[in-house]
Formats: sequence, structure tokens, C-alpha cells
Amino acid sequence: MKVDINCDLGEGYGQFKSPCPEEIFKYISSANIACGYHSGDPMIMTQMVRLAQEHGVAIGAHPGFPDLQGFGRRQMTFKACEIKAMIQYQVGSLLGICLGQGCQLAHVKLHGAMYNMVSSDEKLAVGAAEAIAEMGLDLKVYALAGSIFAKVCQSKGLKVYEEVFIDRNYLNNGQLVARREENAVIKDTHLAIQRGIKMVLEGTCMTIEGQELELKADTLCIHGDGLKALELAVALNDALTKRNVEVSS
Amino acid sequence: MKVDINCDLGEGYGQFKSPCPEEIFKYISSANIACGYHSGDPMIMTQMVRLAQEHGVAIGAHPGFPDLQGFGRRQMTFKACEIKAMIQYQVGSLLGICLGQGCQLAHVKLHGAMYNMVSSDEKLAVGAAEAIAEMGLDLKVYALAGSIFAKVCQSKGLKVYEEVFIDRNYLNNGQLVARREENAVIKDTHLAIQRGIKMVLEGTCMTIEGQELELKADTLCIHGDGLKALELAVALNDALTKRNVEVSS
Amino acid sequence: MKVDINCDLGEGYGQFKSPCPEEIFKYISSANIACGYHSGDPMIMTQMVRLAQEHGVAIGAHPGFPDLQGFGRRQMTFKACEIKAMIQYQVGSLLGICLGQGCQLAHVKLHGAMYNMVSSDEKLAVGAAEAIAEMGLDLKVYALAGSIFAKVCQSKGLKVYEEVFIDRNYLNNGQLVARREENAVIKDTHLAIQRGIKMVLEGTCMTIEGQELELKADTLCIHGDGLKALELAVALNDALTKRNVEVSS
Amino acid sequence: MKVDINCDLGEGYGQFKSPCPEEIFKYISSANIACGYHSGDPMIMTQMVRLAQEHGVAIGAHPGFPDLQGFGRRQMTFKACEIKAMIQYQVGSLLGICLGQGCQLAHVKLHGAMYNMVSSDEKLAVGAAEAIAEMGLDLKVYALAGSIFAKVCQSKGLKVYEEVFIDRNYLNNGQLVARREENAVIKDTHLAIQRGIKMVLEGTCMTIEGQELELKADTLCIHGDGLKALELAVALNDALTKRNVEVSS
Repeated sequence: MKVDINCDLGEGYGQFKSPCPEEIFKYISSANIACGYHSGDPMIMTQMVRLAQEHGVAIGAHPGFPDLQGFGRRQMTFKACEIKAMIQYQVGSLLGICLGQGCQLAHVKLHGAMYNMVSSDEKLAVGAAEAIAEMGLDLKVYALAGSIFAKVCQSKGLKVYEEVFIDRNYLNNGQLVARREENAVIKDTHLAIQRGIKMVLEGTCMTIEGQELELKADTLCIHGDGLKALELAVALNDALTKRNVEVSS
Repeated sequence: MKVDINCDLGEGYGQFKSPCPEEIFKYISSANIACGYHSGDPMIMTQMVRLAQEHGVAIGAHPGFPDLQGFGRRQMTFKACEIKAMIQYQVGSLLGICLGQGCQLAHVKLHGAMYNMVSSDEKLAVGAAEAIAEMGLDLKVYALAGSIFAKVCQSKGLKVYEEVFIDRNYLNNGQLVARREENAVIKDTHLAIQRGIKMVLEGTCMTIEGQELELKADTLCIHGDGLKALELAVALNDALTKRNVEVSS
Repeated sequence: MKVDINCDLGEGYGQFKSPCPEEIFKYISSANIACGYHSGDPMIMTQMVRLAQEHGVAIGAHPGFPDLQGFGRRQMTFKACEIKAMIQYQVGSLLGICLGQGCQLAHVKLHGAMYNMVSSDEKLAVGAAEAIAEMGLDLKVYALAGSIFAKVCQSKGLKVYEEVFIDRNYLNNGQLVARREENAVIKDTHLAIQRGIKMVLEGTCMTIEGQELELKADTLCIHGDGLKALELAVALNDALTKRNVEVSS
Repeated sequence: MKVDINCDLGEGYGQFKSPCPEEIFKYISSANIACGYHSGDPMIMTQMVRLAQEHGVAIGAHPGFPDLQGFGRRQMTFKACEIKAMIQYQVGSLLGICLGQGCQLAHVKLHGAMYNMVSSDEKLAVGAAEAIAEMGLDLKVYALAGSIFAKVCQSKGLKVYEEVFIDRNYLNNGQLVARREENAVIKDTHLAIQRGIKMVLEGTCMTIEGQELELKADTLCIHGDGLKALELAVALNDALTKRNVEVSS
């Protein structure tokens, strides 16, 4: 049995560094690298690509909204064609850095408000899926498990990894509890690991409303901007390995 | 006999549009498309790629400094590794848009202060040349005729088009008179055309200091942000065609 | 009888210039000057303040969302405290320029999506009104006639100018038809002038749904980014003057 | 005997936080608050103004170049009129926040490359000094001790605090060793404190070239982006107090 652990990385800007320590590369199998819109700049992207390459971690683009001040977490109204163009721009920008380092771009995972909006808005989901499909690079898409976006990507012939969040609470409809809510994030590492194991082994998760939710867990997300990112990655990798689940993209 | 006419295009941002009319695509053979740093955004880039494709015009990336407020014309101090990373980022971003439209990226032309600085600073020239060479995309480089950058690119095995400016005055050392000088730009269209023809047919140009300068004119630049861009493009294309010089990239 | 004509000005950025000709200062009584977030930069702001001063036109701050690429017209989710801080920042920035020129800041008019969102969202309206009131500068607020924001400002003791749009269609609820709708903007100058005169003299306007809407018209808006801004300003100023309505802030 | 301790604060952006702990407000007498160009945003500025007010710390504007990616440390070519406008913009922006909190703006300290360039370039120094003088707010200017900028400010009638850096090496000409040099920064806290005490009590400092440099030390700078900022502030405040030097703006 195999599962992927992915982490959002390179989420700094110039002098501002991501709080996530580099050591995390040892415990993950996929790195989603910010592409300059919600965070990330060419120097940081270059460094992250190098580190991913050194650790044999799959490299993915992590495009977001053009909102550095809001870290791409503010909802913004966009047309599908705008989402499409800004995804191709950002995926391309990381592709440029990868080509310069002689390594491969493997996947795309959208960020923040962009991730959330395509999960439930079909028009935007189509724009985002077409953006990736039409680039013809055979990129995998990491999409919220069970979301509209996951389905639209599959219908466009894209290979989808359904993604689950071990440290976020879910609603019965499969969406994440919004970050503005008090109980959006699960802060207890032990509990988060337990939930993660259950998602992988049983394909289910208890929602905040108390219902058992079925989830396909192809990839587990570690939030790189969380202060406990490394602790969570180490514990999760360890717990999976002990249960003979291989961590691999 | 053949020569290329290139024009900087897509140099707007969001609501702000470049003053250059689309009709100019009929009279040029290469479009240098701004990549979001000194100007340009994903929607404008998408539109410019489409127009270039429709008109059979070669598509090039036009990277610049991250200075939207100064339109990339302000000198800024950068290390060679920073120039390198920001060129790969920007070239990649346009590559992303091109892949999305199913068309090819053909060349790179640097913008403004970045163009000027690599023309005379060898360390930066090496960083910029390596940026392009290491991407391995077989991109041509449009570089100031006779400049250090042109030479460095050739030494890295890159195919270089030496570029001349028909509406700019030259110094004896082959550099352009800086824009802040009064006589930097030649405003008389007729005179600019005459100079262009001489550059192409005889490979020479009279400097502002009154000396005959030898120049290799592989590609002629039309400034897309000039108000007379279209007028100049039409007249130049016409003058070349009448002398049996084919306009082609 | 008196009415104010206001126009959004300085809505360029660096090399990108607003399409609105300077001559418009002759026909308006209030200039709303963009403050760097949706457009505007320190040099443009300085120039606009100088022109307003020369023409005896009242100077107002025109703050918007931090969204240069979207010209501040995209809805973005903000908390009231964020709206408050970003208004004080932007109003202050223009105050800084005014102090440097030895002239007075007279009013505030919000821009684009920020203007629209405070018109109907009470929490945001309170944040925006408090931002202005707590600065203690005795600034007038130009607010959508009849809107929640106009009412909230009045309740905070601010002097409000109720604003009407002569070239925009209205809904029965007093809100503007959204720009994304086909018939949002009235393109016929003659019709726009007629509507403006009716608003001023009779205090009413025909909605797109065919109902007579009562409006208090303290100030009439000319969109400075419209291509016909000058034409509209000249015709409106002329039509009002002929009917013995003085144009004055 | 009295001396001021100043610290650059609020040098984060959105989600990116300055590494400087809030506790530092207890040990300083002046806070230079970043104004959004090289770092800082309206929410962070609001929070910093509040903290300064609570701790009785003087509030100053800390304007820099529009270069968030380079943290305002890259040299950029500007005209004096551009420096002037961008200082008034940024000082005004913090004034706006201060007015909103009912507190006073006391001083201006320029940041990074802007600070360095005005220290030695007279034209830019004049632009910067006029920017502050013409605002008429009676703001003090914190300027490199002995610099051209300090002299120009005095000649314009501005009250100048000459500033020294306890953790930076000096050249014989009174300028700081550039940050790109290996020995620019003194990392040993004990040594930095000793140097600071000597500057305050004796008005001298040993340059890296081995010469005794005379310096007027009205205010001592603690770099808020340094990781040891708090340690340094505590030790400096303590060492001064023990020698009966009052820390006060």
C-alpha cells in the first residue's frame, strides 16, 4: 500500500522566509512550490526545486490568486478565462525554473481561495482543469477528494490525486470548514495523525457534524506555513511506515 | 536578403492597455511579449500569443526587472544568480501560455534596464545567457549588436540575432544614448527609416559623435510603447520590401 | 442652486497613463485621486494635486482594493478592520502629498468594488465610515445616494454628499446595475446628460426595471477612465450652467 | 545625559511577519514603522502604532523603495522628484494610520538603499529633505551621523537626530561598510554594546580601517529584522542605564 504526503513550500517572498524548515523534505513525497502570486519568488523557487531534486521529492506548481498581502486566501471574483490564464502563467513560471535545473514538473496543486473556489464552482473548475489539460505536459492534479474540481479534471482526461487534510475539519458535504471558523484547524498532532491513518486505511473521516464521510486519500496534505509542519510530517511519515504504508508520489 | 522586424508587445497591465494597435502584427515578424514583471499579465499575454499565432509572427519572451512602477527602465542592483532566476521565471511564464495555446516559443529579448545592463556588464551577461542556455529550449536570443551579451550568448552556444534600433542614437562604443539624454530617440520617422535601411544594406550607422559604426543587423526593433509604432512599422516594412529585403524571423 | 461634478483622476500607474485628458479639470468641481492601490502612484498623485489646485477643484482621496491587475473592480473578501486600515493608509498617503503641496484634502470617495461592497454591506460600511471619522480631518464622504454607507456615515457625524451616476443604469433598490451586465453603462452622451439634469432638478431617475427612483443628487460622477469623459464633462457642465445650476463643490 | 534607541519595526507583509518580538518595545524609545513599499501593510502599521502608543515609544515613518522582493535594499535609479513624492506618500500613509489612532507622528527615518543613497548623493538628499520639510509637520529626521543628508536637512531647518549603528562597521569616510561585504555586520553582541557605549559617551568609533571616527550619537539603531534584535536592545538599554544615560526620544 502506498500514499503520497504533499507539502506547500517556498511560501516566502524575498527577505520574508517561510517558517517551514528544509528538513521537512525528508518526510514528504511531493512539494507544491508557490509560483509568485500569493507568495514565492524566482530565487526561492530555484532553491526549492533544488532541494526537492536532492531529496527525490516530486515537484509540483502551487498557483494562487495575485494577492500577496492576503496570501491568496481572500476570495476574489474572477472569470474562468482569467483563472485559466493565471494558472498557465504560474505553472509555466515553475516549469521555467525546473527546465533551468534539468528536472521535471510532476503535478499541480492550487492554493488557498483558488483551491476552495474551484472545489465547488463548476465554471471555475472547468477553466482551471482546461488550463492544465491544454498545456499537454501530462501533469497530475492534486484536488480536494470528492470535489467538483476532481470530477471535472477526470472528465478532461487528467490524472487526479484525491487530496485529504489531516489537520482540517470537514463538513458533511465533503468541504473543509472555512478557516475563519474557530474549529477549522485541528491543532492536536496526535489526533491529526489518527485521522490521517483512518483516511488512508479505511477511506473515511468523521465530519464536524458527526457523520462518517467517505474520502479517497491518494495524497495527504501537510501545511507548510503551519508552525508544527515538521513535527506533523515526521509523525505522519512514521505512523504510515509502521503500518506498512509506503510514502511515495 | 532577409531581416527580422521585432516589436515589444503586451506592455500593458490589467485595465492599462499598451498604446500599440494590434494592426502592427501585420508588419512585423517577431513579437517580444512582456512577462508580468515590468508590464504584462496572463490575460494580455494570452491575447498577444493568439494574435502572434494568427499573423504567423514569431513569439518571444520579453523579461524585465520587477518594477512595474518604473516600467523596468530603472537600473537596479542584482546578482547574476537573481537575474538568472528571474529570466527563467518569466520565460517559463510565457512558455506556459504558449503551451496552453499549442504554439511555440521562439526567442528571448530582455527589456529596458535589464537589456542595457547585460549589454555592458559581463557577470550579469553570463547569468542571463546561462538562464536561457540551461533551459534547453533552443531559444534564439535578440541582443544588442556588438554587445558583451551577444558575445557571451554565442560563447554559450546560443543562436544570437544581433539587434539594431532604427529610432535610437548610438555612441561610438556601440551603446545606445541613454533615454534620459535629450537626443536618445530619433523622432523623425523618415530619418529612422533611412538609418534602418543603411543598417540592413550596409551594416553601418552614423553615431551621435559623428563616426561610422559597424553593426550586424539581424533584427530591427520597433518600440511598441512609442505612439508612432504602427507608422514606423508600416514605413519600415514597406521600405525594406521595395528594396527586395524579405521581412522574416 | 448648486451641484458638484466629481471625476476619478490619476488612475494610471508609472508609465501607464489614465486616458482622461487634463482639460477635464476645467469642467469639474471635485477630483477623486487614486491612492496607489487600484491605480495611482506618488508622481501621478503629485501631478493631479497640482492640477486640482491650479483649477480650484476640490481634492479627494479615492482609495480602493489592493488589486492593480483588476483595477480594484474585483470583489475581495475583507474584514471591516482591514477595510478600515487600508482606507486610513490611502487617505493618509494623499494627505501626505497635499501637505507637501501646501493644499487641503477635502473629501473621500471609495473606488470600484470597495465602493459597491460598502454600499450594501453594513459591517464593511461601519469599518469604512469609522476609518474616515476617526481621522478627525472633517473630510466629506461621497457615497452612493440612498446607500447603507451614506446612512452609516451620517450616523457617525460625517458630512455626506450623496452621489449619482449619470451614465449608469439603476435597479429599483437604488443599486447600480453591475458592470458585468450588458446594460450597466449608458453610452449615449445625450441621454446621460438628460438623466443627470433630471436627477439634479427633480431628484429622480428611471430605473432599468421601469420605476421612478428618488435620489438625492449632491454630486454627479464622471468616470475618468471612460473614453468619453471629457465630452461628458463639457456637456454636463454646459447643460447645468444653462439651467442656472452652479457647478461647485 | 540622554540618548535615543530606535528600531525598524513592522517590517512584515500580510501573512509574513517580522521576526522581531513585540517585547522589544520595552527597551527602545523610537519605532520606525515600515510604510508599505519595502515592507509593511495597513494592518501591521495599525498594530505597530498601537504598540508604540501603549509603550510610550515615539512613532516614526520608515519609507523605502518600491521593492518588496528586494526589501528595499537594492539600489535603484530615481530622480530627486521621485524620491520626494514617494517619501511624502509613505510618510502620509503612516500619518493616516496615526490620525486614526489619535496619536502623533514624530520622526522620519529612511530605509535601506534609500537611506544609503541620500547619505552620499546631494541631489537625492535635497529631494528627500524637501519632501519632509515641505509637509510642515515639524518631523525630526534620523540621518546617518555626519552624512550629506544630515547636513542638507539642517540647512532646510529640519531638526536632525544623528544616527549611529552599534552593530555595523564604518569606513574612514563615515559611511557604513556595505552589507554585501563580509564584515559589514558585527555579530558579537558584547562588542556591539561596547561600541555603542563609546559612541554615546565619547562620540567616537573605531573604523574598519583602524582610524578613530568622530560621530554625533543622538540615536542608536537596533535592526528589527536581525534575529538578535531583542537581545541587543535589552543589553544596550541596560548598559546605558547603568552608566546613567537615560534612554529617551
